[in-house]
Amino acid sequence: MDRRTFMRTAGTLCAGLGFVGTEAALAQQSDSLPPPSLPGGRTLEEALRARQSIRSYSEQDIPGEVLSGLLWAACGVNRKETGKRTAPSAVNKQEIDVWVTKKDGAFLYEAKDHALVRKGSEDIRALTGTQSYVPTAPLDLVYVADMSKVAGKTEAEKSNLAWADTGYISQNVYLYCAVMGLGTVVRASIDVPALSKAMGLPPNQRVIMAQCVGYPKA
Amino acid sequence: MDRRTFMRTAGTLCAGLGFVGTEAALAQQSDSLPPPSLPGGRTLEEALRARQSIRSYSEQDIPGEVLSGLLWAACGVNRKETGKRTAPSAVNKQEIDVWVTKKDGAFLYEAKDHALVRKGSEDIRALTGTQSYVPTAPLDLVYVADMSKVAGKTEAEKSNLAWADTGYISQNVYLYCAVMGLGTVVRASIDVPALSKAMGLPPNQRVIMAQCVGYPKA
Repeated sequence: MDRRTFMRTAGTLCAGLGFVGTEAALAQQSDSLPPPSLPGGRTLEEALRARQSIRSYSEQDIPGEVLSGLLWAACGVNRKETGKRTAPSAVNKQEIDVWVTKKDGAFLYEAKDHALVRKGSEDIRALTGTQSYVPTAPLDLVYVADMSKVAGKTEAEKSNLAWADTGYISQNVYLYCAVMGLGTVVRASIDVPALSKAMGLPPNQRVIMAQCVGYPKA
Repeated sequence: MDRRTFMRTAGTLCAGLGFVGTEAALAQQSDSLPPPSLPGGRTLEEALRARQSIRSYSEQDIPGEVLSGLLWAACGVNRKETGKRTAPSAVNKQEIDVWVTKKDGAFLYEAKDHALVRKGSEDIRALTGTQSYVPTAPLDLVYVADMSKVAGKTEAEKSNLAWADTGYISQNVYLYCAVMGLGTVVRASIDVPALSKAMGLPPNQRVIMAQCVGYPKA
């Protein structure tokens, strides 16, 4: 979808989230991310050795460059000529969106332009999971599948593939966090209807899992 | 499960695969893998940049050390004290087994001892997928979920989690391959009943996906 279509779609999706913007206003809300902070010399082996789940976070904010690096690692474009990504998806449908929920609102990661599109200004982190530690993470990623895009013939196949494709992205987040001093944990225990409503998701957009990210509590 | 129980279970599972062994004979078939060839100085960033799907393989065999490194990267133990792994699993159920199918047979990766347990001596690579390139890969990994172990309350939840947990492992394989000069592609198009029969899987063991690994054709 081209940029204009994308913004139009974003306008429609946004209505449910306390942000009622015109297309022009929304366009202003799409910000390029700062240059990504990537893990430089940190090796894949280090990342695999350090991969773990962390459930206790300090209040320290995540710098924009780190968020930028995290999102690129998760499912950024790694082959500009084809738009293919760091994580595979069944039949290259790229049906999983990564939403970013923070204190200052909810945003959609737009991999093609490596940009964040603001979708709302409310803090909905507490809705991204049922565990008590969830809102203490400065960042909660939400993985959302476009079920009209995902590969698979039956409902069950589509669901399986959307979950697998989320796993690919989420593992990249784990490995990035492992070498960047960040703690993270993925979670499937979510009140999906409540979160979907707060995000203003249409019926074809399904919340799959969510993932806390933050600096570990000392 | 302890080693003895594991070997007993392996004996039961083995019956379907042209390998009818006594427990003692099976024990001899469990081999420690050689020391893993790990990607050393190759960085996580390099791995993410090079991550791609490759579907054309040379006939070059994969050395034992590389197979050993690949399996450790996939879902090896990275914290000996707890037995936790390089890939997460829902509620740490560790329900996904990685099977290795090669020209000389089928093997189960036993992460706790970083060992391969022979499960059969037939070449069943062609059964691990419907695509014509599948049997040309020297190695086809098969991801098998123990549905009696996986987290989740309903059948649908269990299935979703098993597929997500497979995605985590499979992404590690992608990243290892990306920096080790190997090509790989994950596949969901499988005649599951035929493969399950050839592998001698009991009903609680469900084939999720499979993944080719080989050196790319020049």
